[in-house]
Amino acid sequence: MKFRLLTPGPSPVPEETLLELARTVPYHRTAEFRQTLAEVTEDLKYVFRTQNSVLTLTSSGTGGMEAAVANVLPPGSKALCLISGRFGERWRNLCKAFGVEPVAVTVPYGQAVTPDQLKKALAEHPDAKAVLATFSETSTGVANDIEAYGKLVAPTPALLIIDTISGLGVMPCETDAWHIDINVTGSQKALMLPPGLAFVSVSDKAWKAIEANTQKRVFYFDLLKAKNVLAKDGDTPFTPAHTLIRALRHSLKRIRAEGIENIWKRHARLANAARAGVKGMGLELLAERPADGLTVAKMPAGIDSSVVLSKMEKQYGLKLANGQDTLKGKVVRLAHMGYIDQFEVLAGLAGLELVLLEMGVPLKPGSGLTAAQQSLAASIKPA
Amino acid sequence: MKFRLLTPGPSPVPEETLLELARTVPYHRTAEFRQTLAEVTEDLKYVFRTQNSVLTLTSSGTGGMEAAVANVLPPGSKALCLISGRFGERWRNLCKAFGVEPVAVTVPYGQAVTPDQLKKALAEHPDAKAVLATFSETSTGVANDIEAYGKLVAPTPALLIIDTISGLGVMPCETDAWHIDINVTGSQKALMLPPGLAFVSVSDKAWKAIEANTQKRVFYFDLLKAKNVLAKDGDTPFTPAHTLIRALRHSLKRIRAEGIENIWKRHARLANAARAGVKGMGLELLAERPADGLTVAKMPAGIDSSVVLSKMEKQYGLKLANGQDTLKGKVVRLAHMGYIDQFEVLAGLAGLELVLLEMGVPLKPGSGLTAAQQSLAASIKPA
Repeated sequence: MKFRLLTPGPSPVPEETLLELARTVPYHRTAEFRQTLAEVTEDLKYVFRTQNSVLTLTSSGTGGMEAAVANVLPPGSKALCLISGRFGERWRNLCKAFGVEPVAVTVPYGQAVTPDQLKKALAEHPDAKAVLATFSETSTGVANDIEAYGKLVAPTPALLIIDTISGLGVMPCETDAWHIDINVTGSQKALMLPPGLAFVSVSDKAWKAIEANTQKRVFYFDLLKAKNVLAKDGDTPFTPAHTLIRALRHSLKRIRAEGIENIWKRHARLANAARAGVKGMGLELLAERPADGLTVAKMPAGIDSSVVLSKMEKQYGLKLANGQDTLKGKVVRLAHMGYIDQFEVLAGLAGLELVLLEMGVPLKPGSGLTAAQQSLAASIKPA
Repeated sequence: MKFRLLTPGPSPVPEETLLELARTVPYHRTAEFRQTLAEVTEDLKYVFRTQNSVLTLTSSGTGGMEAAVANVLPPGSKALCLISGRFGERWRNLCKAFGVEPVAVTVPYGQAVTPDQLKKALAEHPDAKAVLATFSETSTGVANDIEAYGKLVAPTPALLIIDTISGLGVMPCETDAWHIDINVTGSQKALMLPPGLAFVSVSDKAWKAIEANTQKRVFYFDLLKAKNVLAKDGDTPFTPAHTLIRALRHSLKRIRAEGIENIWKRHARLANAARAGVKGMGLELLAERPADGLTVAKMPAGIDSSVVLSKMEKQYGLKLANGQDTLKGKVVRLAHMGYIDQFEVLAGLAGLELVLLEMGVPLKPGSGLTAAQQSLAASIKPA
């Protein structure tokens, strides 16, 4: 049986990237590695759409989120946390851990935090040092409107700090044009690498805040040190996961070859097809404002998604993700990001249909598939 | 030309471990991954010689060192830092970053911190919360006497926190018998994996200190959370570098198959040969109390080790490491740890001879090699 990874992180990794990981391990303090890091940094700037520094950290994405909070926000300061799911909650938990007062703006799972909510919170808390938000909330499949947030935050002294972990390289994300001061992403989503690296872009406004923060306790995640070592030596302060960085080059070259705008279009097309597919088989989407990297479908009454997912994996080799916390058993999460193509999305939908049929859900075989295929075919112009 | 990695980290990785890294990426929240993590954790306990919890962090070894300092030591507390080189300095810098007062016990590069020095410092600073030290000081090739430290620290309230990054799996290191409260190591040395993972063992005495530390600011490196999630869910709090962990299993199986005592003997034999080799070609060792994972040789007067190393790499594909900071240009560091065998040590010595000859050093070709071979042959019993 063929295995297909259709989870919203880790997501599949191209063959040439995987094979690079099996190559002989080099030393890391060499001109060759500095060249690799410089290339990767340039290509990341291209994906981030930024002229800002982009720093590579050896950690999961959460390490990058911690770097943002720990460097920027002194203990006792206040931050607005826009929470539309579990990863928004992570911002709040990080603030608590670092002695920062989180002001939570929370919406029910499935909804996005509206720009109006942010506007109100900014007016009520003009002393907030930062706005912490999530681009693609991987737990619910919601996309938040970061562009609108940026318009509200940019004129204030607050910094806009965004977790784009499952959104960058999927949907348009304009770090500079949207005034994202710190943009944190991870390696294991649309950047098509195994987990182990986080990437953080930092604006001039954010560097000023970091330099002014005399109360920070940072060492491993010291962004200023990382920036200075990169500028001075083209290197990292501590031994990096250099074989991952070397492999990342291949995935980034693939992104540059396709072109970021084309990648955004491709993901939008896949997302439309996935949404059409789940609706076509009679399921509802959880997200009111869905992200393009994953589709989160609610299960029909009486159907436990844990059973569905277990059958999909065991019988068909299709690995989708369950809901987390209160959503566990209630939804399935189908990824269509990075190195997942249209035919794998169709495979995921087909497997879901087969399992729901087996579990007695009244469903016409092919109803989801046909709707998805119609969506995919909409971009075909017959000769 | 064949490339040979003979640097004291990253060090070479066995083929089966590398090939595992090229396998299809799995999901990480699965019974299969939990099983892998459980196996790896058990095998790490075997290498650590401990019954304590061993936690796997996605970071370089420095992240593990930070975890120790940030979890255990409240700001304003005092720690003894035993400094015999650059990595001992890292403990002091970590203390400073986390508001801990470092009391430095420093020796010149090449010397070990004696147990007497520690005894005196403990007597002068009975309020020290921890003793931070380095087992194998990778910058100088010195081995510190952790067993003796343990005897001095165990009866006190202080914790013994040791960086064993380039020593664990090389020389006898008895976490429990030597009373090491927190033992920090990394993946890219004798554990035969690329960089990207740190491993931390924590004693009951250390857990009590961590639980009592109400002023800690930790999130990504929260050891208590990592312990609880591992115990409850068999998992990690954040997305781990799971493909590295899966690959680590192969390297650890190799260690178990050989047996840790045999591995210590093998490294001692290689270290003796390397030391005999450099002495045989007329060079001096930097370390008075040399570690078994690397040999640091001083260059003859007028010979710049940067030139030697560049020639060895370009002409012979032999990658050794330079000295760091003030030792740069003055020494070469030859690794014999992990997946480096006796014939590679001989290759390293042979290449060093050839380059020194080329640079005009008066030297009998084969003098180093012969001395090394005599050392290797000492364990052969003729029939």
